Amino acid sequence: MALESLRYRRGSLEVLNQRLLPGQLRYERVGGVERAWGAIRDMEVRGAPAIALLGCLSLAVELAAGAGPSEDLGALEEFVGQKLGFLLSARPTAANLGREAERLRAFVRQRVETPGVTPEQLRESIIEYIEGLLEKDRRDNRSIGAHGASHILGRVPGGGPVTLLTHCNTGTLATAGYGTALGVVRALQQRGSLARVFCTETRPYNQGSRLSALELRHDRVPVTLIADSAAAAAMRQRGVQAVVVGADRVAANGDVANKIGTFQLAVAARHMGIPFYVAAPSSTCDPTLASGRLIPIEERPGTELTHLGGVLLADPEVDVWNPAFDVTPHELITGGIITEWGVFAPSELCRALAERGEH
Amino acid sequence: MALESLRYRRGSLEVLNQRLLPGQLRYERVGGVERAWGAIRDMEVRGAPAIALLGCLSLAVELAAGAGPSEDLGALEEFVGQKLGFLLSARPTAANLGREAERLRAFVRQRVETPGVTPEQLRESIIEYIEGLLEKDRRDNRSIGAHGASHILGRVPGGGPVTLLTHCNTGTLATAGYGTALGVVRALQQRGSLARVFCTETRPYNQGSRLSALELRHDRVPVTLIADSAAAAAMRQRGVQAVVVGADRVAANGDVANKIGTFQLAVAARHMGIPFYVAAPSSTCDPTLASGRLIPIEERPGTELTHLGGVLLADPEVDVWNPAFDVTPHELITGGIITEWGVFAPSELCRALAERGEH
Repeated sequence: MALESLRYRRGSLEVLNQRLLPGQLRYERVGGVERAWGAIRDMEVRGAPAIALLGCLSLAVELAAGAGPSEDLGALEEFVGQKLGFLLSARPTAANLGREAERLRAFVRQRVETPGVTPEQLRESIIEYIEGLLEKDRRDNRSIGAHGASHILGRVPGGGPVTLLTHCNTGTLATAGYGTALGVVRALQQRGSLARVFCTETRPYNQGSRLSALELRHDRVPVTLIADSAAAAAMRQRGVQAVVVGADRVAANGDVANKIGTFQLAVAARHMGIPFYVAAPSSTCDPTLASGRLIPIEERPGTELTHLGGVLLADPEVDVWNPAFDVTPHELITGGIITEWGVFAPSELCRALAERGEH
Repeated sequence: MALESLRYRRGSLEVLNQRLLPGQLRYERVGGVERAWGAIRDMEVRGAPAIALLGCLSLAVELAAGAGPSEDLGALEEFVGQKLGFLLSARPTAANLGREAERLRAFVRQRVETPGVTPEQLRESIIEYIEGLLEKDRRDNRSIGAHGASHILGRVPGGGPVTLLTHCNTGTLATAGYGTALGVVRALQQRGSLARVFCTETRPYNQGSRLSALELRHDRVPVTLIADSAAAAAMRQRGVQAVVVGADRVAANGDVANKIGTFQLAVAARHMGIPFYVAAPSSTCDPTLASGRLIPIEERPGTELTHLGGVLLADPEVDVWNPAFDVTPHELITGGIITEWGVFAPSELCRALAERGEH
């Protein structure tokens, strides 16, 4: 069984504390929204889909435990809205939690306006709605994997097996299961069409070495760990045929915010004529932002570069610039954006989703 | 006073153990060639010029202490040749030690063939020759700095101050003093023409964070540390106007072997229209290799990526590809190669040096 980021059943939620990996595998109880906020801010859990699910599920757990008003529909609606607003303040860049929160608010509004609904029924329907998100994420990831695998195999001479390169962690540890970019890797593996996947270590937080290498080895996927700096050399010398990464937010024009270093990988892939793919659920797309320049980029503390565990890596007084994400312009996403609905040209994605009524 | 990689006076040599930086500043005695070999292999000292100097100076120390035959010119020549051959086996990629060893052998040969030279005179002249290398390295670095600063300022609109980006460590800790790429940084600083220099941390050995940030802050140079993955974003968003790196070996066609990640930086700089410079003493050029494809690339242990200090960064069983260097094709070195003789187009360098009788 794959490593899971979250373990949920009605009334109970646990999160795998990813800060302790790879040395220690520890699931910690999340009793409610406050604990989830801390886990998101401190990066015990990361990855846009997992963040969104943890936030929403922590609210479901509180509701199942009877938190919030139980006499009045409007008061319960306000309670849910406040909890969601608080969760959104944990980290600024990921779109998914914001989008799920917005949809959940709309769902609650609609239920409140439905004649005859009791507060107890409203509470139950919110819990069921959130549980549906968990199932949808797993289902969507399998669709992403299938679409991505087919598209990549269609472009490779001879139809594979293919060698991929990926960045950061977008697997079972970043989602409810299967993964987005790593979902594509898993789908290729299941078809017998994966030669190898190169994982960058993904400094400064080492999601590649600590998480991707761990979960892929756990599932017996042939994986090779490289320094972030070795990516272009791996593309040139080790037969990389496609680069597949995740996304934290996609703007209306197809520009993609993702883990710092993604832009550099896209530039290298373009230089070497290797197709560059972004794999993300359609909820990652934010049509309210015309271009990537408008995506807010979180800057993280310099200590992530000056300290590691108990080891001093640099003069602790040195000036540090530590953006958590960068923006890859749509024209560098030469393979396409892989969603649960199929693979789209970046500039077509938002329009295609709007036509499906997804936005 | 700047941090020094080596401290030498006749008969005495100490090396700054760079593995202990930035936490601890400790100079360790080098009594002879064997200790130097270990320091080079274990990367207590690194940087092609510093490696060459440490190797040669350790031989000078042995000779000053009376090691080797003292009765016979030929036996002393053979002794020196064996010591140099042993030193060359420590690390394969750096050209400078190989070139200096070859020149030293030729010098010894010439002295042996000079009528009337005694073994004692031969010994003394070898020591003096090696001491001259130390002085030459410092002098050459100041010339590199001056040529590079003038060339960069000539290309920048308004003449500066300029913002640079560099990789790895090429400063006082990689040379006998002043530095190559960091010599250019220092020369700009001394002219009041440096706005800021961005240093990559340079995984997996962290020469940027442990060494460059340390020695630049020590000299009050405005420096900002970034993750290797943030380099392209810094070029785009933080006003980087030129990239300057060092070199471990330059092939006859101008292809450059340097720290892993250099190729990727050159690709990013080209994409953004930022000039890319290599700063290196002319001894780094190896006219016997037609192109960069012929440069042997050292692969280092995977533990550099899976472990750091006492911290486990990845599943220790994971497959790792850890090349120490990569090759940047000459066409990406758009600024030029900065040597003690001036700035050259990469493809012109070896011919220009040959015309000067340097090769």
